Amino acid sequence: MDQNFITVNEVGPRDGLQNISKIVDLAGRIEIINAYKTCGISSIEIGSFVSPKSVPAMAETDLVIRGIDINEFNYSVLIPNLRGFELARQNKVKIICMVLSMTESFNLKNINKSINDSKEEFRIIIDKSKEERITTKIYLSTAFECPFEGKVKIAKVIENIDYFIEHGVDEIVIADTIGAANPKQVNELFKIIERDFDISKFSAHFHDTRAMALSNVYASLENGVTKFDSSIGGLGGCPFAPGASGNLPTEDLVSMLHQMGYETGIDYDLLLDVVKLASRVTNLVLRGRMNHF
Amino acid sequence: MDQNFITVNEVGPRDGLQNISKIVDLAGRIEIINAYKTCGISSIEIGSFVSPKSVPAMAETDLVIRGIDINEFNYSVLIPNLRGFELARQNKVKIICMVLSMTESFNLKNINKSINDSKEEFRIIIDKSKEERITTKIYLSTAFECPFEGKVKIAKVIENIDYFIEHGVDEIVIADTIGAANPKQVNELFKIIERDFDISKFSAHFHDTRAMALSNVYASLENGVTKFDSSIGGLGGCPFAPGASGNLPTEDLVSMLHQMGYETGIDYDLLLDVVKLASRVTNLVLRGRMNHF
Repeated sequence: MDQNFITVNEVGPRDGLQNISKIVDLAGRIEIINAYKTCGISSIEIGSFVSPKSVPAMAETDLVIRGIDINEFNYSVLIPNLRGFELARQNKVKIICMVLSMTESFNLKNINKSINDSKEEFRIIIDKSKEERITTKIYLSTAFECPFEGKVKIAKVIENIDYFIEHGVDEIVIADTIGAANPKQVNELFKIIERDFDISKFSAHFHDTRAMALSNVYASLENGVTKFDSSIGGLGGCPFAPGASGNLPTEDLVSMLHQMGYETGIDYDLLLDVVKLASRVTNLVLRGRMNHF
Repeated sequence: MDQNFITVNEVGPRDGLQNISKIVDLAGRIEIINAYKTCGISSIEIGSFVSPKSVPAMAETDLVIRGIDINEFNYSVLIPNLRGFELARQNKVKIICMVLSMTESFNLKNINKSINDSKEEFRIIIDKSKEERITTKIYLSTAFECPFEGKVKIAKVIENIDYFIEHGVDEIVIADTIGAANPKQVNELFKIIERDFDISKFSAHFHDTRAMALSNVYASLENGVTKFDSSIGGLGGCPFAPGASGNLPTEDLVSMLHQMGYETGIDYDLLLDVVKLASRVTNLVLRGRMNHF
């Protein structure tokens, strides 16, 4: 891959849509996902296999998959456990995302399990994924701060990176789930990661809750990170995390990356058209923070 | 000064107020300036001695000065020329700000002079200021990009830094007047400045037009910059610069600095009260980009 290429992973159809009050119907979800093709976004989290009771907006992810060509792009699906993995496998999903919180209380709120139980289950899922040639991504969520337990120690994050690298995960996403990280912390963490691990296996997921998402992206880029999550128009957050509003808007991320001279494969003007489409489908005023002058 | 201390220079009463459609009256201007005391902001650009015809919002800056104690804090006033300097001197201003654009067309639009003519006049003003014990600040505006001439070469900026350092200016403000700089450019410029000059003489002024102001602050901090301009609630811009809307909101700057462990002497909660007061006086919905959750 070109050194200058940054992968933008769009999380609007999952992290975005599951956190708005309106439940977007199947046709709307498929329309948004297919629209990304027009602007060149090819890495997209399209849904999750979680309990429809807990997250009704993500029900029928199997039907979403039937409405698209699952082999066409880097489409990923979030799964919380073995049951979710089984559904992903049956639906021929090629990339699965797992989420482990760095604090017990958040992991409990999020997937109702202890960290150790989750790790053991995810390890089994990684093993099974290898047999099935499914790519695995582990989100280390609340990697900087937890709304319940406060600051997270770097040692905690590194310990979990070690665990998942050892067990052969394909990608580790450092996630600032509640948008509490500052660029100094991001720099500190990724400096250690770059020194001790293969940085190309890492990705970063920031929220703009405290207006620092792009600063955190810059701090990550400075340490060799080349993969970032973002959500169209800033759509979404996490329903179980107080104050987690405001994903990093994809158009702001792409705008900054292009201005810095990076390539993303994305056409910025066509991306804005997709933002408009998503605004119409969700009936929300979606827009990045950049003024489109 | 404590290594960990960052000076926040508030430009709302000048850069802010001169760029809104409403002209805030004398009492309102004084009320805002005096309100900053409550939250600990002590470095403030309070007005300018420019032609009231060109910038009606800044008329009566002499009366503003009579309404405050000019010796109490680090109050600065912008002056475009010798006539402005004379007014500043008569009004016992202790800190003056001059603005030189890095491109001819912008300098012409802004102060109706060639760069060379401005430099010669500013040199004379610096000399006179030394006799009067007035502190001098030179803004190198459009230091990264000009709306008329495009990208600005680093060599151009360095050449002007050389000139003003040689002539004994007290502070040089690197100003991204139209909010077009990206953190990579900021890093490149300040890396050179830090290597070749005394970084403590430098300050940075960013606009958030393209959502990169805080990223640019971070890139500056990484190179030892300890002084930043910002405007309460993001108030203002430059009336002669297309697309210059959106100063960096003071509350977002302060929030990020505090989260990174820097000291500013500013009480964040009381600062938000001043934002509310300024909203009332200007009749605008002012707010930073950070969600106050």
